[in-house]
Amino acid sequence: MTLSNPYLVVKLGGTEGVDFSAICKDVARLISEGQKLVLVHGGSAEANALGEAIGCPPRFVTSPSGYTSRYTDRDTLEVFAMAVNGKINTFLVEQLQMLGINALGLSGLDGKLVTAQRKASIRIIENGKQKILRDDYTGKITGVNISLLQTLLEGGFIPVIAPMAVSEAGEALNVDADRAAAMIAGALKAETLVLLTAVPGLMRSFPDESSLIKNLTVRQLEEALNFAQGRMKKKVLGAQEALEGGTGKVIIADGRFDQPISNALSGAGTTIVP
Amino acid sequence: MTLSNPYLVVKLGGTEGVDFSAICKDVARLISEGQKLVLVHGGSAEANALGEAIGCPPRFVTSPSGYTSRYTDRDTLEVFAMAVNGKINTFLVEQLQMLGINALGLSGLDGKLVTAQRKASIRIIENGKQKILRDDYTGKITGVNISLLQTLLEGGFIPVIAPMAVSEAGEALNVDADRAAAMIAGALKAETLVLLTAVPGLMRSFPDESSLIKNLTVRQLEEALNFAQGRMKKKVLGAQEALEGGTGKVIIADGRFDQPISNALSGAGTTIVP
Repeated sequence: MTLSNPYLVVKLGGTEGVDFSAICKDVARLISEGQKLVLVHGGSAEANALGEAIGCPPRFVTSPSGYTSRYTDRDTLEVFAMAVNGKINTFLVEQLQMLGINALGLSGLDGKLVTAQRKASIRIIENGKQKILRDDYTGKITGVNISLLQTLLEGGFIPVIAPMAVSEAGEALNVDADRAAAMIAGALKAETLVLLTAVPGLMRSFPDESSLIKNLTVRQLEEALNFAQGRMKKKVLGAQEALEGGTGKVIIADGRFDQPISNALSGAGTTIVP
Repeated sequence: MTLSNPYLVVKLGGTEGVDFSAICKDVARLISEGQKLVLVHGGSAEANALGEAIGCPPRFVTSPSGYTSRYTDRDTLEVFAMAVNGKINTFLVEQLQMLGINALGLSGLDGKLVTAQRKASIRIIENGKQKILRDDYTGKITGVNISLLQTLLEGGFIPVIAPMAVSEAGEALNVDADRAAAMIAGALKAETLVLLTAVPGLMRSFPDESSLIKNLTVRQLEEALNFAQGRMKKKVLGAQEALEGGTGKVIIADGRFDQPISNALSGAGTTIVP
């Protein structure tokens, strides 16, 4: 399929500090200038807070290769859906509607927008020992329904996508928002993927901001996985997946200030090219 | 606009007792037989439970003309969005996906699917006195974006709609699910609107089930408003609105048993015709 429009995919962190209002204003300005845009959001902080409030606190697990993720049993999946699909997605759409943007919220479950393979069991490291967890509702993304996205974009809607996916059996799954954004950007052959977060970009020596890396090629990302800390590892993996999928470039940038997307497009943050 | 397909709109109650699983199986069977179908759901019971759990219990108010509705301040709107858009909508879509139906969940806020006029102040009766409440995020539905629904239906998606709407200013509003279903059925000129609930239909002397009214015309609904109790009043109003909008017929039927939609279409419950 040939895509004639230069798409921009923006991922808003679920991390505290990221300024959703500034991002929405910037989105509105870019759209008014004719930019075709897809938003993908997280919601970890909200899901954690809701889980604590209703007596289902979050549990994070670490894989043998050092990646941290949310352990998602059925109760946690419900909390996640309420906080992320219910609250973040709805009120992001509201903020955009109030700015005159005809946003339309979806999760990856809707219309099989994002398909994933359920990880029926996951290996984790706990107290130095490997353990197997079952009943986990997370997935590895396997596909993106581009035709649904195209239909919405051609209809003048701005898709706002929550990080859930659908398994082959139809189950709802929690997926990583950075990697969902990456797969969507890759599938759309987006011109640019902007991953907004609460730090200035990829740093060689986190949290020393003077060690910010301005430019990187995809070949240097393997090395970056060694010094990227915590959730930044997922962004680096996401950048790899997006570029391999055909995205023009990936920018990891600061989402805490005014005009964060425009600033990223003008050179702020870490730009990664094929 | 000419609509060539005979649409069926089904509203699932948010009331306890309504069997979502039986409804989804019935939906899947009807769709496999070629039925074009739109689902609208409520979620009051879930919203109440979540509100209680997080310390934001529901508050119901009664209008001078005797209609009961949820008082929706900003906190309640968030609870409503989490329970209704986040939980009910997501897991209804999941249930349908597991039955092989490509469901797509939306609220009326998404893509301005349902527009409403915000009631900036509402008059209520409390302890026998009239009072004015402000900061209420509820609305009176003013329109339905049929072209979005048509696009989705033509794309092979089954829309599953949560009862929220968007105000002219872009605000998210809580709207009554029965009346949202009615407005959607009217706008689609649906062949049939089925309102599923936890009673056998409209009863002349609630809760005496032997007083069930099998057939009614729209002209008799004015009188029905006098004996309809509680939330049944909203269904009667909804039936009026749907029929005035061009819906072929409205059936108020029991959603607690197997094949509730098929049973309604075969004559169970209360059938109301123009």
